[in-house]
Amino acid sequence: MRPYAFGVDIGGTAIKLGLFRTTGQLMEKGSIPTRTENGGENVLPDVMAALNRAMDRRGITWDHIEGVGMGVPGPVDGNGTVYQCINLGWGVFNIPRAVRGLEPRIDRFKVTNDVNAATLGELWQGGAKGRRSAFMITLGTGIGGGLVVNERIVNGTGGGAGEIGHFRVVTDEPEACKCGGHGCLEQYCSATGLLRCARRALADPDHLPTALVDDEELTAKKVCDAAKTDDPLAVRLVDELGDRLGWALTAVAGTCDPEVFVIGGGLSNAGRFLLERIETGYRRYAFHAYRDTPFSLAQLGNDAGIYGCVRMLL
Amino acid sequence: MRPYAFGVDIGGTAIKLGLFRTTGQLMEKGSIPTRTENGGENVLPDVMAALNRAMDRRGITWDHIEGVGMGVPGPVDGNGTVYQCINLGWGVFNIPRAVRGLEPRIDRFKVTNDVNAATLGELWQGGAKGRRSAFMITLGTGIGGGLVVNERIVNGTGGGAGEIGHFRVVTDEPEACKCGGHGCLEQYCSATGLLRCARRALADPDHLPTALVDDEELTAKKVCDAAKTDDPLAVRLVDELGDRLGWALTAVAGTCDPEVFVIGGGLSNAGRFLLERIETGYRRYAFHAYRDTPFSLAQLGNDAGIYGCVRMLL
Repeated sequence: MRPYAFGVDIGGTAIKLGLFRTTGQLMEKGSIPTRTENGGENVLPDVMAALNRAMDRRGITWDHIEGVGMGVPGPVDGNGTVYQCINLGWGVFNIPRAVRGLEPRIDRFKVTNDVNAATLGELWQGGAKGRRSAFMITLGTGIGGGLVVNERIVNGTGGGAGEIGHFRVVTDEPEACKCGGHGCLEQYCSATGLLRCARRALADPDHLPTALVDDEELTAKKVCDAAKTDDPLAVRLVDELGDRLGWALTAVAGTCDPEVFVIGGGLSNAGRFLLERIETGYRRYAFHAYRDTPFSLAQLGNDAGIYGCVRMLL
Repeated sequence: MRPYAFGVDIGGTAIKLGLFRTTGQLMEKGSIPTRTENGGENVLPDVMAALNRAMDRRGITWDHIEGVGMGVPGPVDGNGTVYQCINLGWGVFNIPRAVRGLEPRIDRFKVTNDVNAATLGELWQGGAKGRRSAFMITLGTGIGGGLVVNERIVNGTGGGAGEIGHFRVVTDEPEACKCGGHGCLEQYCSATGLLRCARRALADPDHLPTALVDDEELTAKKVCDAAKTDDPLAVRLVDELGDRLGWALTAVAGTCDPEVFVIGGGLSNAGRFLLERIETGYRRYAFHAYRDTPFSLAQLGNDAGIYGCVRMLL
């Protein structure tokens, strides 16, 4: 195996790049802005230019690079075909082919969905270290999910594995999810969803006592912080999130029975306080065959993606 | 590779045995009764005796046998440890070790859950032929499920993969499931569950018009047959089953996005009529990334298990 490998995690506003030793050590990391104009046509050329600059700085060449692993914010099938990355302006195309067209000297190239990559990263050197399988869920603007079985990412047939955020959990939700559906898990259990539920609760004149105020400044973090001080309404909101998300994860377990659940994304900064409520919900509903599945917090933060991208190559 | 392999599918009343060429051809099959007395201590010795008899009849020896694949009616982890097979009287033990203790001449041995084996069998030569991944659900006395990804069975950490039958789909169910929970999918969508729902509906004096009568003779098959003749209550019952099961399968898709769903078990003898209702429910709730996943009926019937058991070895 060659001595180095690149991990590239493409997001809607920034692209994270990591140079790793193939022994697993992160040598350096950096980021460049994501230029999404013109259907995101600059994204891959910008990545290749950045990788070449990084090599120049260290006096190494593609001959020293085992390969490039890449994560993108959208569904990717097993052949590396991406089905729209709305955040990048991308339509449907085959990423490995495009990358090799730009840089034929790359020895090995793999691509997956960004949350799948992060899940593998957490399995390798983060919150699921030492495990062979994991289901990770990221609670942020939306809900992302990733599945790893036998240390390999499961992309799913159309790249849909892990997309549990659009499982319909409420039948009479009047507001539409951004997917067009109604009652999706992500409408209640993402950071945005928690904030939405808080606003809705505050609009009810009979709501529980609370120090929360429905202003422009209200955030999901403020709801979690209030719950930690035993604010009655905030506690109720976080409990409901934990109950609903925990319940949905019993369906994940009934499908693939992962060794561990990893909770990440911005909302997971609420820490063990939130994790315990999700666990409580899960154990309330889980079948005995998987009732004791452990839960961990993600540990690698925004670096999880570049770790997982490199791990795909090793 | 040696020329032959055995598939052994252990059920609560009978053990199915199949002798295959390792090219995939089923040479002969048979069955022996399952002796469950004394904690099922005779089950594995009876299997070994039957395999030896089959070889004697053909004048072949263990030297001609690539291996033995086995399916058992309970959760099995990746090391072959079984966690209770209530139907066999078995507790917790390591099956490969027990089998090799009885017959050290076996070259290769693999064991999995019976529904997982059936799923792999359907993928190899049945309703999912030519696919690389599938989720199969069997609708019988209970609901069984099996997951295959990249042509390999996913057992799950505690053997719980596929156990979606105990996902809680109703929050206010007064009757207990046999697992001890309340509101499990299997209480509504198995053959037993459909019959239970029919009995409950018939007990309501305001039920829809129907030719069904709540007697000892009522069966899930009769409900399906009546629905096929447009019996209003029976149609409602089958529609509800399809809607609920289809919805639950969207959670499966959001976890692993299989290439195909396969519907098996006794209730699946209702054929495309039932399949279409499950599909309709699924497409009503599914996220676009996996909305078009195809559905197939199982094709191998009771032989699916022995096919899958052998496929594990190849």
